[in-house]
Amino acid sequence: MTVRQERATRTRNTIVLAAASVFDEYGFEAASVSEILARASVTKGAMYFHFSSKKDLARGVLSQQTTQLAVPPTDSKVQELVDVTMFVAHGLLHDPVLRAGTRLALDQGTEDFSDSSPFPLWAELSARLLTEGKERGEVLPGVDPQETADLIVGCFTGIQAVSRVTSDRKDLGRRISVMWQRLLPGIVAPGVLTGLDLAEDRGERIVKAAQAARAAQDADAA
Amino acid sequence: MTVRQERATRTRNTIVLAAASVFDEYGFEAASVSEILARASVTKGAMYFHFSSKKDLARGVLSQQTTQLAVPPTDSKVQELVDVTMFVAHGLLHDPVLRAGTRLALDQGTEDFSDSSPFPLWAELSARLLTEGKERGEVLPGVDPQETADLIVGCFTGIQAVSRVTSDRKDLGRRISVMWQRLLPGIVAPGVLTGLDLAEDRGERIVKAAQAARAAQDADAA
Repeated sequence: MTVRQERATRTRNTIVLAAASVFDEYGFEAASVSEILARASVTKGAMYFHFSSKKDLARGVLSQQTTQLAVPPTDSKVQELVDVTMFVAHGLLHDPVLRAGTRLALDQGTEDFSDSSPFPLWAELSARLLTEGKERGEVLPGVDPQETADLIVGCFTGIQAVSRVTSDRKDLGRRISVMWQRLLPGIVAPGVLTGLDLAEDRGERIVKAAQAARAAQDADAA
Repeated sequence: MTVRQERATRTRNTIVLAAASVFDEYGFEAASVSEILARASVTKGAMYFHFSSKKDLARGVLSQQTTQLAVPPTDSKVQELVDVTMFVAHGLLHDPVLRAGTRLALDQGTEDFSDSSPFPLWAELSARLLTEGKERGEVLPGVDPQETADLIVGCFTGIQAVSRVTSDRKDLGRRISVMWQRLLPGIVAPGVLTGLDLAEDRGERIVKAAQAARAAQDADAA
């Protein structure tokens, strides 16, 4: 990457972050491009070099959000599915891109971002983990992975939205923990449930473990 | 009620309906009062006699929505809880007040309608039915009614929102049916599940049965 390319990437990221914080606060309709420019401290020209419109900015935020769902592998595919939701629930407390993405995903009644809607991607990831869990005998034979994945995406989306309105997402970890406690008996094979970690601080612990692993790797490389 | 009072009530209802259709289409922020006036065919003066602001109109829509959750009694409190969600899922297909209410409830990040938020009322109704179900032995002893009620409200809210974005709510009945199939094994006592009607057309059948009952009553009265 040349210096110029690096600078362009940095500017683009700054704009996406500023757009995310404005979309998170106001929603798509009420968000203003001039507020995004002010928060990013960039000129109109710099913005239009990367994004052609407010809608394009929203697409940029949405597409960045869905790249952030990787969780560390575990022995159980169901645990990995739980971990994705716990990881996102934790991230929603402070990551403006995630926060804005969930809000924009629900704002789509007015504006059509269907080409960049995160719902199909979230559902695809969940369906893949459920299918793998089924092959390993973790998931009950009668469970349809796609249908159940759509259910999980719907429940998560609504729970975080209600939690945002009622507690500014302070109780989100607990609510997601309750979701899995009530949902999993209808999804996993008998005996699997007791081996899973559904505690409300699971998201925080995954993030810390991942950070520690990265730090150890960096130390090895140095 | 005097003729004048009747006329005022009728005007108020017309305004609430027009406001609902505009809020449903645009969301709170992008909704314009002049569009509401145009759809209601009333003057500004008539509107301000009933509602002091756009926010007040939103409150009017939200408060009307939560009065519509009564379902016919059945032998099972869990079935009644299922029926409330099936009834609302069916109503969301054509009732603008319900549609607008669910949208406004999620728009609350920007505007604070906490005094008229429907979430606590929905959760209260669900918690009451779960508590009664627990007393009758339908609900598992380990299930916390309030926590589980919050879960159901969150799941329902998200599922209808995702269904709105992805299929204009055409698949909502099926999605709610899947929700109960997966959720209930973690909520109801063994054996209860098989006696419940969770079919996706349950909402439509309840509404038709209620209409038939009302028609029979009217015929008796005549």
